[in-house]
Amino acid sequence: MQSSHKIPVGVLGATGSVGQKFIELLSGHPWFEITEIAASEKSANKRYSDCVNWVSSVPLPEKIGNLELKPCEPGLKCKVVFSGLDARVAGEIETDFARNGYTVISNSKNHRMDTDVPLLVPEINSDHLDITASQPYDGGCIVTNPNCSTTGLVLALKPLLDAFGLAEVNVVTLQALSGAGYPGVASLDILDNVIPYISGEEDKLESEPKKIFGTFKDGGIQPLELNISAQCNRVAVLDGHLECVQIKLKKNAGPDELINSWLNFSGEPQILDLPSAPAKPIYYFHQDHYPQPKLHRNLDKGMAVSIGRLRPDSLFDYKFVILSHNTIRGAAGGAILCAEMMKVKGLI
Amino acid sequence: MQSSHKIPVGVLGATGSVGQKFIELLSGHPWFEITEIAASEKSANKRYSDCVNWVSSVPLPEKIGNLELKPCEPGLKCKVVFSGLDARVAGEIETDFARNGYTVISNSKNHRMDTDVPLLVPEINSDHLDITASQPYDGGCIVTNPNCSTTGLVLALKPLLDAFGLAEVNVVTLQALSGAGYPGVASLDILDNVIPYISGEEDKLESEPKKIFGTFKDGGIQPLELNISAQCNRVAVLDGHLECVQIKLKKNAGPDELINSWLNFSGEPQILDLPSAPAKPIYYFHQDHYPQPKLHRNLDKGMAVSIGRLRPDSLFDYKFVILSHNTIRGAAGGAILCAEMMKVKGLI
Amino acid sequence: MQSSHKIPVGVLGATGSVGQKFIELLSGHPWFEITEIAASEKSANKRYSDCVNWVSSVPLPEKIGNLELKPCEPGLKCKVVFSGLDARVAGEIETDFARNGYTVISNSKNHRMDTDVPLLVPEINSDHLDITASQPYDGGCIVTNPNCSTTGLVLALKPLLDAFGLAEVNVVTLQALSGAGYPGVASLDILDNVIPYISGEEDKLESEPKKIFGTFKDGGIQPLELNISAQCNRVAVLDGHLECVQIKLKKNAGPDELINSWLNFSGEPQILDLPSAPAKPIYYFHQDHYPQPKLHRNLDKGMAVSIGRLRPDSLFDYKFVILSHNTIRGAAGGAILCAEMMKVKGLI
Amino acid sequence: MQSSHKIPVGVLGATGSVGQKFIELLSGHPWFEITEIAASEKSANKRYSDCVNWVSSVPLPEKIGNLELKPCEPGLKCKVVFSGLDARVAGEIETDFARNGYTVISNSKNHRMDTDVPLLVPEINSDHLDITASQPYDGGCIVTNPNCSTTGLVLALKPLLDAFGLAEVNVVTLQALSGAGYPGVASLDILDNVIPYISGEEDKLESEPKKIFGTFKDGGIQPLELNISAQCNRVAVLDGHLECVQIKLKKNAGPDELINSWLNFSGEPQILDLPSAPAKPIYYFHQDHYPQPKLHRNLDKGMAVSIGRLRPDSLFDYKFVILSHNTIRGAAGGAILCAEMMKVKGLI
Repeated sequence: MQSSHKIPVGVLGATGSVGQKFIELLSGHPWFEITEIAASEKSANKRYSDCVNWVSSVPLPEKIGNLELKPCEPGLKCKVVFSGLDARVAGEIETDFARNGYTVISNSKNHRMDTDVPLLVPEINSDHLDITASQPYDGGCIVTNPNCSTTGLVLALKPLLDAFGLAEVNVVTLQALSGAGYPGVASLDILDNVIPYISGEEDKLESEPKKIFGTFKDGGIQPLELNISAQCNRVAVLDGHLECVQIKLKKNAGPDELINSWLNFSGEPQILDLPSAPAKPIYYFHQDHYPQPKLHRNLDKGMAVSIGRLRPDSLFDYKFVILSHNTIRGAAGGAILCAEMMKVKGLI
Repeated sequence: MQSSHKIPVGVLGATGSVGQKFIELLSGHPWFEITEIAASEKSANKRYSDCVNWVSSVPLPEKIGNLELKPCEPGLKCKVVFSGLDARVAGEIETDFARNGYTVISNSKNHRMDTDVPLLVPEINSDHLDITASQPYDGGCIVTNPNCSTTGLVLALKPLLDAFGLAEVNVVTLQALSGAGYPGVASLDILDNVIPYISGEEDKLESEPKKIFGTFKDGGIQPLELNISAQCNRVAVLDGHLECVQIKLKKNAGPDELINSWLNFSGEPQILDLPSAPAKPIYYFHQDHYPQPKLHRNLDKGMAVSIGRLRPDSLFDYKFVILSHNTIRGAAGGAILCAEMMKVKGLI
Repeated sequence: MQSSHKIPVGVLGATGSVGQKFIELLSGHPWFEITEIAASEKSANKRYSDCVNWVSSVPLPEKIGNLELKPCEPGLKCKVVFSGLDARVAGEIETDFARNGYTVISNSKNHRMDTDVPLLVPEINSDHLDITASQPYDGGCIVTNPNCSTTGLVLALKPLLDAFGLAEVNVVTLQALSGAGYPGVASLDILDNVIPYISGEEDKLESEPKKIFGTFKDGGIQPLELNISAQCNRVAVLDGHLECVQIKLKKNAGPDELINSWLNFSGEPQILDLPSAPAKPIYYFHQDHYPQPKLHRNLDKGMAVSIGRLRPDSLFDYKFVILSHNTIRGAAGGAILCAEMMKVKGLI
Repeated sequence: MQSSHKIPVGVLGATGSVGQKFIELLSGHPWFEITEIAASEKSANKRYSDCVNWVSSVPLPEKIGNLELKPCEPGLKCKVVFSGLDARVAGEIETDFARNGYTVISNSKNHRMDTDVPLLVPEINSDHLDITASQPYDGGCIVTNPNCSTTGLVLALKPLLDAFGLAEVNVVTLQALSGAGYPGVASLDILDNVIPYISGEEDKLESEPKKIFGTFKDGGIQPLELNISAQCNRVAVLDGHLECVQIKLKKNAGPDELINSWLNFSGEPQILDLPSAPAKPIYYFHQDHYPQPKLHRNLDKGMAVSIGRLRPDSLFDYKFVILSHNTIRGAAGGAILCAEMMKVKGLI
């Protein structure tokens, strides 16, 4: 019945908002084909279209709508699963899948900081994939992608880190509603309002970049020493996290040098021309009032990061603004790019 | 015809959004009574209610609605004028009024940084009023209040400055739409969006606090030396500026000491029990997700500042969140409090 | 311990959004004093302030915050309870309270259409209160107020019904988020969106007015014969239901006659000067673009109805726009007005 | 320098919001190529990208950005112009262009109701194009498309009119912000609000459908006799007009018959497979809460109309909900479809 030579994949947590984004983005993927979708017990064995409150404006593909939801247990007919599971259950379920020989690519936070699990941004640290060899799963493995607010930040910082070194990073975020999943933030809490708090978010933003920028040696990842301070706010935006960033560099550099390092940035996904890789990972805007979530979140199908407003800073060296699409680059799209990288590396 | 022993006052720029807020807040004021309203040529000599697009949910007082709009020229029958004039015209008009013997209390930016003009937050620097003596206006004077985003910041910083000294201040704002006046920000630009730029705002926020915290001596104001960095964003909130602040103190202090300094803060307006003075200038919230614009902007009739989320910071000493009502405490209400202070000091 | 001669009352469903509004509006009430608050099992026996996610910008009164939540069972030390219970449980619990001698004033839908229960809008049908005599509860009774979208409509229609007779009513609503309770509508569902459906709402709006306008005779309420068609939409507004109404009258009448009937409208609550009665139940605006939720929902403390845009209609006789505050006039405030009327009538 | 055999076209009012949409939608059009862009005097002779505040998330095509803006006067090097001119100037300018031999396809209201000007919805009344022959312009002509709220309505009504006849139509709209152009509605006027009024809109919605459904005979268009009543509201939605419609049919018909008439509807643009024609002009949704602006406005690239919630009505025969994209199907996209139809008919 399978229509192609594509690699069959499953989606865990398929009814949730990240799960839905996986389905949206994997539809028509040239390498992968969704053959299995799984969710919590209560929707198991029902038709997907009867269980899901499909929230995207891209219509649910009919073929997926007709699939039967399975429980989130090994037994799915595929070797690769994308996990958009809720953090309350993701940890154990993902381990269980890995133990049973599945390649688990997870957007959940549970295993991100495990010492033997790569926290992958393919433009930055594909070499960290080698650490999966040390995972105790016979044939299976777990690979994670970072928190949605981390991804945009590290992509913007990577060229600066390479060219000038980073001493300090300060970041204040204005994060979109879709980052909280569905139903997520109540409309009564956010219309005409800002919530200056997102549970657990600041910790992730302060710790994940150090691991991502870490050095893989002696079979482990040595995190980068970097002082990062984060403050996170929820704003009334559907998609697209904006981040106000300040940095202190290790080397002196003029603004044009920074901008050039962004514009010239390119990673392995670009070199390998991976299907989900943005042609240009980073855009820089010279207009004072750019980037903006509504205008720029979908650049390069939501996989590019937009930067603007670079200017000197009196407390650090520079300040600037970053925007990235939190459910595409920062979640499902980022995880799919990880899978593409793994396939090219022979890990899938 | 005047119904009271109240001091007659005029409002310049009466049809604009700050002008309207002056009218709303001065209605029923125990000391002042609006007898004159003035606006640009094109509405002069018309009835106020026929010209104004009244935007507040507090109904336009009928008595004011029936007043005739005058041109913004000396000749108004009052000695005190509140100015909500647009910055494009405020400079000259205000000077003209002062020169003609009027006391001008202005919310416009034009004269704020003039060396002989007080930039007044009555809880902080009422002694700066003495500098008006050096103004070259026979009988008249100009007094200003700060930019809407400055007011909340300096009120939150003042107790810390006094108790522990301030070495560095970093601030990222999430500012309300009403700060841009009316019509201000187009709905198409801000629904489902953030604009990471407000023209001129960062400069004000980096410079005004130094003057406000300055020392009045030898007939001049010696600004405080303080390194401030600001980044300003516009968000889809009607009223209430939120600010994410980081500070480095000169003395070590524990979080409880900071909170106590806020809770115990009280200035001359409180001691004098001025009509517009908030009983408590500063509220501190222990809930993680507070303060919020929708919930806390109207505390103490919009004249109090709300603070929350105090926590240690790895780059500075502490970080926390401030909220204040930008068109009340940060504009018309703040200017009225200045006038009250001037009256008590015999300057009106 | 009780500080006054006020009548002790309880609030059922005290942690929900209607329950919170009861608490907000009853604070400082001249006749009633909250002494008991009750909620579902899981919060019972805890301090209110530890359980409630207080959503109003009016701070939670400290005295109430310190009260202990009781389970929703008879045994509360008061004779009158206001019910903001969820419809899934309100039916049985309210019956249980009535059976145990309590006067239950309910904002829940469950008993509204019971033949022996008044559906009360005090300006319209206070005589319906007499039907409580036929309720099978020894000493107790149940009185309900209508659905939030019904209340504004019937108040606007009542003067027309009395003066000109009503043949047909067509109504399309644009309803606020707070009508869905808390957490209610997900922000992802309503930002940059409209939902053209509110479960059960159209039925209520088509049936409740007939009972409210019904005639009390022979111990029963004979509903008014009236053809009503309703369509209900949810929009991104915090508070305030707007309704586009078309009517066919039984008698010819000019627009001025309709407007006069609204402006002159006054009911028993106005005559009796009840504490929560709006001085003017109905406002009429001549401006084309009024009424608007943001500007007019709070008129007369949210208890007045605003009307505008009266104009002839080619399919009916007239069309016009109604606005009323859904959680005040249309819920807690309306229910409190019922209680005040009952007290004056000796039923409390 | 021209890269193709495409027909060169101009855009009048190129900096406005409709003009921008023309540019966005014509980029990559298989038949037309923008070679001229024109706007008001003050931007004439400047580079487009230096004058326009580009509001779309689809980036401004570089080639267009480099074009020089011309004044809106005949002399443009093309024979076909699309007009997105403001109604204050469109009337005369369009006449001037037609008089000078240009084919003017206009989205402005000025000439819509002229007796010799077609008001075109290509699926409905392409035969009306013949009336251009009676226009007094030697070689030139003016063709218009309807108001944004009209287009969705008439597309939904057309199949019903053909199959069952229409006796009465009642419509209440919830219209998007982009319908007001840019800057259009102030954010302070619409956040947490609804404006129950759109100047001139109800008249258009009540009159334009009669002309569109009119019969072309004896060289003139005989409007359909049809009683339409409209009420128009502005809501906080970026794009997509929602309309609550009630209809009385001339023949009895069951709901399935109506739905089938919609699902089977197809017009000349579909038969001719015009580039901008939606494959399916009408979608019907069986979910209670559909259609919704955010979810369905972009179906078939914004050219399809979505319908849902068909149910019997006690005052009319049926009620249902329509959604269509106001700046695509209801403005620029609709006008481009007109041009495509004219080309196929040999009128371009």
